[in-house]
Amino acid sequence: MSETITPVDPLTTQFLQCLVGRIRAEDAFGAWDRKSDTTLLKDYIVTKAERRTIPIIGDPDPDTLACVETFYQAIGLTVERATGVMATPMMKMSHEGFGRVVLLAGKLVAYSRTLRDMHRFGFEGLSALAAEGAKLAAQAIALIEAHPELARD
Amino acid sequence: MSETITPVDPLTTQFLQCLVGRIRAEDAFGAWDRKSDTTLLKDYIVTKAERRTIPIIGDPDPDTLACVETFYQAIGLTVERATGVMATPMMKMSHEGFGRVVLLAGKLVAYSRTLRDMHRFGFEGLSALAAEGAKLAAQAIALIEAHPELARD
Repeated sequence: MSETITPVDPLTTQFLQCLVGRIRAEDAFGAWDRKSDTTLLKDYIVTKAERRTIPIIGDPDPDTLACVETFYQAIGLTVERATGVMATPMMKMSHEGFGRVVLLAGKLVAYSRTLRDMHRFGFEGLSALAAEGAKLAAQAIALIEAHPELARD
Repeated sequence: MSETITPVDPLTTQFLQCLVGRIRAEDAFGAWDRKSDTTLLKDYIVTKAERRTIPIIGDPDPDTLACVETFYQAIGLTVERATGVMATPMMKMSHEGFGRVVLLAGKLVAYSRTLRDMHRFGFEGLSALAAEGAKLAAQAIALIEAHPELARD
């Protein structure tokens, strides 16, 4: 007998719920109330073909940088829900799409990553976006659980 | 018999040497070669009377923010000379002169401070500047020495 694998709807994952929550939090006047979650996440989906058409010369689009920042805020929120420890993102972006992002939990750098080619930030689809978010959050959660006293400092 | 206290020239302190070094590093064309250290540190000295005349409404002067950033870079350099561990500043400044600065050493947040009223950033004199720099560096060094394995990670 073969088992039936039920595919998980990425929109029901903790990370995408946090990301949609962060995006809707910017909507102070309720203009997006009737927009679906999928519509709101549209800016995060960049297919391979689309990616190739985005030039990586010059400064990245400010809207793209806002997406990157919101993405890491959602990681921080996912980490906070799992550990009870606030994880604050700090992003430093130089020109041309290079930079660094960290997630800080107390006195602990729970996550750190060098950013490059942020012009082309995006994911193949909602599942890829949800998977990457879950992966980064898991790394930060593991480090916080290894050093709880520093993370709660 | 009373002891004679020889006042230390603040310019010879480790921190001010680092700060002057950071300022001169910006001078790619040698235009400041003949300027004295005291002249280069002029922007960091704001007397009480001068401070009162600086409005704290609106965004701070970009030159002032550059001074704040260089100040924390010099703290990082002082920490690095004392511990051998690189301490990288990250600063996040919102409008109106509020923000946060951290010094990151490996996976350790060696120093963290909320910034406010950065419009009026400055010190009464070179001794006050040197003393504040030494104090913040000492805090970061103590934390790195308490968690060497995380700081070197």
